[in-house]
Parts: sequence; C-alpha cells; structure tokens
Amino acid sequence: MDATIRDDPGELVAAARAGDRGALARLLSMVERGGARASAVGRIVHSMAGRAYTVGLTGAPGAGKSTLTSAVVKAVRDRGERIAVLAIDPSSPYTGGAILGDRIRMGEHALDEGVFIRSMATRGHLGGLALATPEAVRVLDAAGFGWVLIETVGVGQVEVDVASAADTTVVVVNPGWGDRVQANKAGLMEIADIFVINKADRPGAEQTRRDLESMLDLTDSGLGSWRPPVVSAVGTTGEGAEVVWEAVVDHRRHLEQGGELQRRRRARALEELAMVVDRRLRVRVDEALGAPAGRNVQQAVADGRIDPWEAADRILAAGGLLSPPAEESF
Amino acid sequence: MDATIRDDPGELVAAARAGDRGALARLLSMVERGGARASAVGRIVHSMAGRAYTVGLTGAPGAGKSTLTSAVVKAVRDRGERIAVLAIDPSSPYTGGAILGDRIRMGEHALDEGVFIRSMATRGHLGGLALATPEAVRVLDAAGFGWVLIETVGVGQVEVDVASAADTTVVVVNPGWGDRVQANKAGLMEIADIFVINKADRPGAEQTRRDLESMLDLTDSGLGSWRPPVVSAVGTTGEGAEVVWEAVVDHRRHLEQGGELQRRRRARALEELAMVVDRRLRVRVDEALGAPAGRNVQQAVADGRIDPWEAADRILAAGGLLSPPAEESF
Repeated sequence: MDATIRDDPGELVAAARAGDRGALARLLSMVERGGARASAVGRIVHSMAGRAYTVGLTGAPGAGKSTLTSAVVKAVRDRGERIAVLAIDPSSPYTGGAILGDRIRMGEHALDEGVFIRSMATRGHLGGLALATPEAVRVLDAAGFGWVLIETVGVGQVEVDVASAADTTVVVVNPGWGDRVQANKAGLMEIADIFVINKADRPGAEQTRRDLESMLDLTDSGLGSWRPPVVSAVGTTGEGAEVVWEAVVDHRRHLEQGGELQRRRRARALEELAMVVDRRLRVRVDEALGAPAGRNVQQAVADGRIDPWEAADRILAAGGLLSPPAEESF
Repeated sequence: MDATIRDDPGELVAAARAGDRGALARLLSMVERGGARASAVGRIVHSMAGRAYTVGLTGAPGAGKSTLTSAVVKAVRDRGERIAVLAIDPSSPYTGGAILGDRIRMGEHALDEGVFIRSMATRGHLGGLALATPEAVRVLDAAGFGWVLIETVGVGQVEVDVASAADTTVVVVNPGWGDRVQANKAGLMEIADIFVINKADRPGAEQTRRDLESMLDLTDSGLGSWRPPVVSAVGTTGEGAEVVWEAVVDHRRHLEQGGELQRRRRARALEELAMVVDRRLRVRVDEALGAPAGRNVQQAVADGRIDPWEAADRILAAGGLLSPPAEESF
C-alpha cells in the first residue's frame, strides 16, 4: 500500500475495491475505532453497499463457533463464492478479555483471496459494537464480499445485538445445552433462524434435537412461516457444514420472497440512525462535562450539593445543547 | 390518603414522611414511570436523603433470593431497625416477563410498619431501571427507611447495574453453581462484597465453598483490603440470615472507615448525572424523530436514499439540538 493513501478514506476505499487487503484492513480499523474517520468511511461506502448478505453466528462460549465458522467458510468457497468473517469479541465490562478460541483454525483460509477474516474487539462498549458492526459490513460489502458472516462469542444482550445486525441468525448449541443455558433459552428461540447442534458426535445430540424441536413446536406459527431447521454438525471434521449453508441459502430465499428481508433491513437502518444520533450527542455531552463549568457541576453533584436534575440543566445549558424541555422545568 | 394530594409530589412526600404508606407507594410509581413527575419527586427528596444504606442482593434465577430476602428482613427487624425492599424485575427484551418467584413468602412482613416491600418492573429498559433505582432509594430514604435492600433477579449486565446502585452487594449462589454460571463467574467475583451459599443444606455446599474460597484467594489483595466472606444460609428456614446481616454490617463499617463508602457514592452520583443528561437528550431526540421533518428523514434512511450520518445531521438540526461537531463535518 502506498504510504500517501494510508490515511485517506476515499483512497483506501478505492484500493480495497481493487483488491488491496491491507487497505481493507485499515478501513476496518478506522471503523472499529469510531469517531470522525469512521463516519467518513461510512459516508463513502454507504452508496456502494447493499449487495452483501449477512449471517450472524452466535452461541455460548465453548460451543465451537470458530471451528464451525471455518468449516462453513470452506463450504461457501467450494461453491466459488467470496465470504468475509467478522469475529466480534464482546469483552466483559470488568475483566477486559480477548477473543476466545484462537483464529489459528482459520489458518487454512489464510492464503485464499476469496476469504477475509477479521476480529473486532469492543472493549466493553456494546454500543460501539452495535455501531461498528453494520459499518464494517458495508466496508466488506463495498470491497466485493457477497457474504459476511458475523461470529459473536456471546451470551445475553450480545446475541440480541448480533441478531439485529444480521439478515440470518444461526444459533449454535451443543448436546446437553438445555441444562446450561436455561435462562437464555427463550431469547435464543426468538433470534434463531437456524439452529446448529455442533459437536453432534457427542452423547445427547438426539435428545437435544428433540428438545429443540418440541420448543419449536410451541412457537411454530404454521403454513408459510419460517420454522428454524435444526442441523447437526461437527465443526472439527466439517461434517454438516454444507447442510448449514444450504439452510442459510433457504432462509435467505424465504426472506427475499416474502419481502421480510427488506423489512428487516429498513428496521436496521432506522436503528442505526438512532445510534448515530446518540453518538453525536454523546460526543457533545462529553465535551460539556470535560469543560471547566462541567467539572464544577460534577463536583457539586458528587458532594451532594445539587441534585442530578439541576446539574443536568446546567450541563446542557453550558454545552449549548438545549434548553430544558418544557415539561421537565418545574 | 386525601384525594387532593394524590398527584402533588410535594404533598405526597410530606405524607410519606409522616408514615402514609399509600403516599409512599404512589411516589414509587411516579419514579418507576419516569419523566417529569419522577424528576419532580427526585428534586424534592434529594436534600432529604443521604442517610439510608443500600444493600444489593443478586444471583441467578432460582437461587432463592426472595426467600433469603425475607429471612434477612426478619433478622433486621429482630434488631429493631426499619428496612425497605425493592425487588427489581429485569424483563427480557423479548419475552416481557414478570417477577420470578411470587412475593407471597414475604407475606409475614405485610402488617409490619417497619418493613416496606415494593416490586419495580423495567419492561426491558435497563436504562430505566438504572435511573429509577437510585431515585426510588432516595424516596424510601426520605420516608425514614435506614436500610434499603435491592433484590435483583439478574444475570449479566443487570448484576452490574445492581452493583452500581448499592453500597454493599450480596451475591447469592447455590451448591453446584460453578458448573452453571461459568461464563459469569468473573463478573460475579468483581461485584460481590459478600457471597451467600443459599440452600446450603443441599449436597455440594462444601465443594462450592472451597471453589469460592480458592477463587477469592486469587483476587485477595492482602492486609487491609476487604475479602468477601462466604456465608452459608437456608432461606426457607432462616438459618444463616443473621450471619448474612452481620456480614453486611461488617462491610458497611469497613467502607465507612476507609472512606470507600464516600468514594463509591460520589462515583454513583456522577454516573446518575450522566444518565439524567442522557435521558433529557433522548426525550428531545424522540421529539425530533416524531416531527414531520424527522419522519421524512427516517423514510429516506430506510429507503437507503441517504446515509445515517447525513440523516443524523438533519435530525439534530431540525430538532435545534446542535450543529454537528466540527470534527465530524467532512
């Protein structure tokens, strides 16, 4: 990559579209960091994107998502299609944390120009992840990847986030999952478009399938609706990966035919707008809090000298953000 | 309660402080609903509050928190002190949901003027819970409750929220917990000031104690620091409840002596200020989005005609919220 284009978003986008993987990596770093450069990249790629189809792949830690992802990538490549993988790391707010499961297993794809693999850390900012993910997808989309797989090492809210960023959501479980993720079961049922029982060569796989199917019986809304298929796979051997991908393609067709894909994407675009607005305001608030007047007000709140509503009025006024809404000014 | 004071925050606060439990309940409903009335209540009680000590009690669903809470309340009452309980219901974003475990077991305290028990639902808005909880604590504080116990049916982020709202956090586990909450262990270790092994009459309690103690060995920072005690209890019989409360009192003394209590409360006050500011801005943004110009912009984003950054500029301008920050206007 030419040193002169290292920091220019427009030049980087052009280079990435011409196949420069270093430029693509740099763009994704910009998006990951957020801020002004991320917005600049976002504005450029927005009109170039819209063709890629996104697949979310999620499940509890240790479910074997990374090996399954690698096997699925191979199945996609066997069909001659290009695919990018975003591996999201939802760091704990307390422990920091790193990508669980190294990416070494993905090494077989390292020299393949039709595959691009990228880890994205969130450093505890789930809001950051929610904003960076669709931006990163559009960058990969603009760079010509027709499929983007978003792998999330997730429990709870993160699964919800990944579901709201993907066209099709694959939930990976293991034999015996029911005992362990009791609390999350309902949430997983809501977001799953496809269930994969990974490590299906282990004891209990058939019982897990029966559990899932009977839960699906309860939520099945009949003819014409999508009933999530339950696919058995063994990520380490690649067994079942092709069937997983067939299910993804089936689901895509279902969404496209019913107009549901467009509906989901419109809802996501609005959700993203709300997040961008929030971030804009947050930048301003941070500035107001950091200014001397803002620091004085914070001191007064910490001392208990003024209440948080009074303090908020002062901060917002000092930041030129807004006069207090009429119904709040008693 | 006199019908004429049913809606006036000032009158309600005066009545609640005089012992009117109906007025107290109404104030808590106002706080729970949020908005202008909640702020009004908050401004009034802010200067009256500051004496109550808050205890968070959290743990996985089914850990027996409600029975343990009832037993602990009895122990506090045996000491002649007044206590209020806020039972928080972190509804799933998908399933709605209701308070797990009915409050019937708390029935023994129903006629006791020294106890006030209140459930607060969050209807999926964790932000709402985070804001309503400290407000509700101050209302109870102003009404003369020296102890407020915040019980949260929680996993993950909710535990973090309850920890940030309480002076002392009690984490309730059960024998064998280690297998089930593997993913959350680190987070629980971070927030726990006291561990309670509830249902300690069941098999595995000793093993669980050894597990906890060896994890605590790893994080123990030595002389003068607080090492969370591990207390065994049986909520259904009340066994151990007195010891749990002694641990709370010990921890309170530790925090008070080291200046840590003041530090924690100052940090919470600043956190709360940030949330109030956020909520103020959110109200304005919702207004801007709902206005005709805002709806047109949303339509354009959903259609993919404009990118979310351009749309955010327009929404913020239309709402008179702010001109875009300089570094974002490329």
